Amino acid sequence: MKYSRILAASLVTAALGTGAVAQSDEVKVIGVSIPAATHGWAGGMNFHAQATVERLEKVYPQLDFVLATASDPGKQVNDIEDMMATRNIDALVVLPFESDPLTPPVQAVADSGAWVTVVDRGLSVEGIEDLYVAGDNPGFGKVSGEYMASKMPEGGDIVVFRGIPTTIDNERVDAFTAAIEGSGINVLDMEHGNWNRDDSFNVMQDFLSKYDKIDAVWASDDDMAIGVLAAIEAAGRDDIQFVLGGAGMKEMILRTAEGDPMIPANVTYPPSMIATAIELTAVGLTSNAPVSGTFVIGSVLVTPENAKSFYYPDSPF
Amino acid sequence: MKYSRILAASLVTAALGTGAVAQSDEVKVIGVSIPAATHGWAGGMNFHAQATVERLEKVYPQLDFVLATASDPGKQVNDIEDMMATRNIDALVVLPFESDPLTPPVQAVADSGAWVTVVDRGLSVEGIEDLYVAGDNPGFGKVSGEYMASKMPEGGDIVVFRGIPTTIDNERVDAFTAAIEGSGINVLDMEHGNWNRDDSFNVMQDFLSKYDKIDAVWASDDDMAIGVLAAIEAAGRDDIQFVLGGAGMKEMILRTAEGDPMIPANVTYPPSMIATAIELTAVGLTSNAPVSGTFVIGSVLVTPENAKSFYYPDSPF
Repeated sequence: MKYSRILAASLVTAALGTGAVAQSDEVKVIGVSIPAATHGWAGGMNFHAQATVERLEKVYPQLDFVLATASDPGKQVNDIEDMMATRNIDALVVLPFESDPLTPPVQAVADSGAWVTVVDRGLSVEGIEDLYVAGDNPGFGKVSGEYMASKMPEGGDIVVFRGIPTTIDNERVDAFTAAIEGSGINVLDMEHGNWNRDDSFNVMQDFLSKYDKIDAVWASDDDMAIGVLAAIEAAGRDDIQFVLGGAGMKEMILRTAEGDPMIPANVTYPPSMIATAIELTAVGLTSNAPVSGTFVIGSVLVTPENAKSFYYPDSPF
Repeated sequence: MKYSRILAASLVTAALGTGAVAQSDEVKVIGVSIPAATHGWAGGMNFHAQATVERLEKVYPQLDFVLATASDPGKQVNDIEDMMATRNIDALVVLPFESDPLTPPVQAVADSGAWVTVVDRGLSVEGIEDLYVAGDNPGFGKVSGEYMASKMPEGGDIVVFRGIPTTIDNERVDAFTAAIEGSGINVLDMEHGNWNRDDSFNVMQDFLSKYDKIDAVWASDDDMAIGVLAAIEAAGRDDIQFVLGGAGMKEMILRTAEGDPMIPANVTYPPSMIATAIELTAVGLTSNAPVSGTFVIGSVLVTPENAKSFYYPDSPF
């Protein structure tokens, strides 16, 4: 555990046998560096980061937090260098804007002996971080596919929206395809909506003109689902029974909670994973529990029955 | 999130928009069910479970804990059924004695709507648990192999001790073998010491009579390392430069901390992972942070520099 090195200085003179050494009374500082955003997934991530820092400052008087939000990778590099220089952070929780530019400053934090937690996007060099907290892309596709199969016991014709061409997208779609295999669900067409509302509106318009009957849509993302729903409404089509988005946008969670038959479910890929990362880092600094390793946050199914517990009215997402 | 269902009853009348729903003031009960033990890895696990419950009862006044230790699988089944019947637990943290007999009672807990965290050993049916906290067996082998390669830059002849024939053992040994590839380290021999001191003493006696010169030993486990060291001492051999065990037994951590050249390092497979599991379950019940998924606790290298922070004098392990 790299954070153990933080403690080493104060323990040099401590005899072995004085108790669990991870419990020290000195105040430790956790830096949190994330991309700024006022809306969308990143907006939700900002909301949960802020809320978690406020909560943990109350829970753990022995912890101090520095939260910095950056509007571009250069600013994020500066934020992290500032945290090192002026706050002497004991741990850093970072969701990198981009992998390449953030790798050297985060490496420098690790080299200083501070604990490093990386969230969602990996760095360009393996093994820098002590803890990696990530979403579960294959799980996201699998849960989505299983839900659609269970919702369409007789099978049916669907169209599928893909994100920006990436490993993430491939993992999701491959797992979805495997999950609907043998279910009688027929994929009429599959196109990239690029996790974008306008692109998905256009793609859905094409699908609607191409196919007279579409039973359901795997939009695979709530932004894409909004574009899809707008295209369906503009076309006045009533053959589509439901649209499955994903990521847990609050407007969509609310529609599921209220029983909207067009949005009967959601699958999480929670921006609140930043909260888990901060909580675990705090646990690592205040207890004997080992928190190095990889935590893959599961994608879970949201239905009208449990939707309320995924709804954060004060979050922008 | 299954534990959201716990909250559903109290939220039926709550309007959406009243705040993050996972934060409720009612006291919630976390059951912790583990195998009993007074020594060895399981003894350390008991120590850390107890310490974590004591710590968290102070940190979170809104949480209650029930800790039960079982000396056989039948007792553990009863413990869990009792927790359901008499304490109405909101969450269960369980390290199953054996997978098969524990699967039905833990399934019943999940079916009741309570949160389930499974630690270390999986159940016989997939998908019951909300959170799985596990050790990293390939990582354990990889870190061990990389350490030996770095410690023997010129290469050398080693013998390797395997555990009880299991998937766990295969994963460790395969990763170790891959990690030393091309390092110049030659594996003279490899035998099963079955994670047992006496078996490993006997195997090491055979190795010592078979090979005139052994440069180092990957004992791969601290119990096996103790058997190996005893055999070396009994034979009066001074060719072996060091023995690498693993799992972080306190006597071995102490020797590393004190600079014993025969025990220059250790690789963790921490019994304190039970602490991580309990901490995460508490975070799930008291915050908005998602804690469903799979947390693979990393195996990390212990050296004289950081050994003190892995030494728990009050633990039996």
